[in-house]
Amino acid sequence: MNKKVTFSDIAKYTNVSKMTVSRYFNDPGSLTPETKGKIEKALKELNYKSNKVAKILANGRSEFIGIIIPELFFDYYSQVLNEILTTYNDFNYKFLVFAGNHDQELEKKYIEELLAYQVEGLIILSYTLPSEVLKEYNIPIVTIEREDQYVTSINTNNYLGAQLAAEHLIQDQCDILININSFVRENVPAYDRIRGFEDTCRQNQIPCKIIQKNFKNDYDVTYELLDSVYQHLESEYSNKRKGVFLSNDNYANIFLNILIKNKKQIPEEYEIIGFDNTISKESIIPITTVAQNIQKIARSAVEELKEQIESKDSEKKSEIRHVIIDPQLIIRGTTGKNSYTAE
Amino acid sequence: MNKKVTFSDIAKYTNVSKMTVSRYFNDPGSLTPETKGKIEKALKELNYKSNKVAKILANGRSEFIGIIIPELFFDYYSQVLNEILTTYNDFNYKFLVFAGNHDQELEKKYIEELLAYQVEGLIILSYTLPSEVLKEYNIPIVTIEREDQYVTSINTNNYLGAQLAAEHLIQDQCDILININSFVRENVPAYDRIRGFEDTCRQNQIPCKIIQKNFKNDYDVTYELLDSVYQHLESEYSNKRKGVFLSNDNYANIFLNILIKNKKQIPEEYEIIGFDNTISKESIIPITTVAQNIQKIARSAVEELKEQIESKDSEKKSEIRHVIIDPQLIIRGTTGKNSYTAE
Repeated sequence: MNKKVTFSDIAKYTNVSKMTVSRYFNDPGSLTPETKGKIEKALKELNYKSNKVAKILANGRSEFIGIIIPELFFDYYSQVLNEILTTYNDFNYKFLVFAGNHDQELEKKYIEELLAYQVEGLIILSYTLPSEVLKEYNIPIVTIEREDQYVTSINTNNYLGAQLAAEHLIQDQCDILININSFVRENVPAYDRIRGFEDTCRQNQIPCKIIQKNFKNDYDVTYELLDSVYQHLESEYSNKRKGVFLSNDNYANIFLNILIKNKKQIPEEYEIIGFDNTISKESIIPITTVAQNIQKIARSAVEELKEQIESKDSEKKSEIRHVIIDPQLIIRGTTGKNSYTAE
Repeated sequence: MNKKVTFSDIAKYTNVSKMTVSRYFNDPGSLTPETKGKIEKALKELNYKSNKVAKILANGRSEFIGIIIPELFFDYYSQVLNEILTTYNDFNYKFLVFAGNHDQELEKKYIEELLAYQVEGLIILSYTLPSEVLKEYNIPIVTIEREDQYVTSINTNNYLGAQLAAEHLIQDQCDILININSFVRENVPAYDRIRGFEDTCRQNQIPCKIIQKNFKNDYDVTYELLDSVYQHLESEYSNKRKGVFLSNDNYANIFLNILIKNKKQIPEEYEIIGFDNTISKESIIPITTVAQNIQKIARSAVEELKEQIESKDSEKKSEIRHVIIDPQLIIRGTTGKNSYTAE
């Protein structure tokens, strides 16, 4: 029952030549609708299974792409992954997904395995391996939102995002602007969220404070750290209207909860802006946020990779490109003049 | 530079026989440490790349497993996927992931493609294709938390989860118990959340109300529907202490926000219990919830699949099994006698 059905079997069954069967697979346009229909029917009745593995060996085209992500707990990563996976319908790539949890050796081992399976390219969101190392693999690579000096990348316009946030807080007449971030290196795209924020404050001559904490990937740690930031802001800027821009929606949500528990008026005493547009809508007060265009980021990543894959065999090597996608400010209840509190 | 390095090349380079090189790959224990070291060094220096594609053709062992999920917007799916992916370190399976968004034809097309690539098995969380259809693919399959009559499955003990929730609400002296759910079919594991809730109420002679709504996968729709449920409960059970059990944390969070905005006392007027332990911790009041043991579910799925894969060639066909994993009630601020409100 599981015996392999060959072109000969199909030819015999349909009473056409093996050549015709071969043309059905490689040049179907050259056949009449009748012949095509006959072969199609035979494939079903014979329970024919195509073997793509043999094709990979023949032409090296596996149609596999590896995706390397840090983990899926941050909504941002799940959403990007989701959008990449849904490109299947348009590009037909099959995605081998790996969540490395920052284990460098394991990530290397995985990538090397993928190469042995002749994946055609890699989309990399994890930041475990420097781009200089990635480049050495010598296959098509696109990174998203991580250090990217030596490879092609798709990143959000983080500078613009921070600028939009700062301008909005300034327009809402906040007296002091605060940026809460984890420790990001200067060579990482997300560092532009600090640069853009600082520059905009400076240009508008508004006091600006950058606060960086080692948040880790843990709710309780983050909560404690943000609670200490709150205490600090209360003692330092007690009578000022505080505009707070946090580096993601999860932090923004926790910070909002701390403010509500301390009976702070929002947006009168504090304005809050998050980043990513993931859970910000589901907070007790829907949070104003900078929305990355995740669909466009994911699609551009696959398109850039496809271009690299297709130009791989040609003479002209495709050059390294850094594609920047503009984000958008989504205004909700934690900013603006409208009074909105949970009470 | 990219020319393929063969066993002959390695043999020449190391001055050992081709047979010895072959044994390095297939029976390394039979070589002395010196010989092994010599070959290892040569592989590095020659930049040898193994070709696993040829091995798939030779022995049919692709080490690929397909994962079919509906989408990644529900945290539950991302978390299960994350846990499955991290089994790579122990089982060495590589996962081809597909998010079908309930498109039956596309899902079929994808699965058939995977078969052509000789994936060794499928883990299926989507509910687009009935298990009777899945069975026909005739390869190792494990489903998670979906209709599973004809295939092996891993499910949470949903009945126990609902029972724990109901018992907790009864113990907290709620007067009326309410279960809010989407429309789930009776042949789906999650339907046991209704059965377990109803049975427990009946056994304890506590009034019980099942409310089912067509929530769709949309925040605004869900918010409107839950707001109408809130209005209904207020008018029907105004002076009663209401114990509300919702079918996931996202719904529980939205319902909690509606209560807080309406200045309801929690847990005095309303007690709330969610399901999944995903975002419940991050709500304005941390929500009591039924936590699925996602790590165990994911691991069991891979283990069950592995068993099927390994017994595939043997005479004894492995039987269909339905593995049930117990969940756990995590008690937080939305239940219990301790008074805790946002104000």
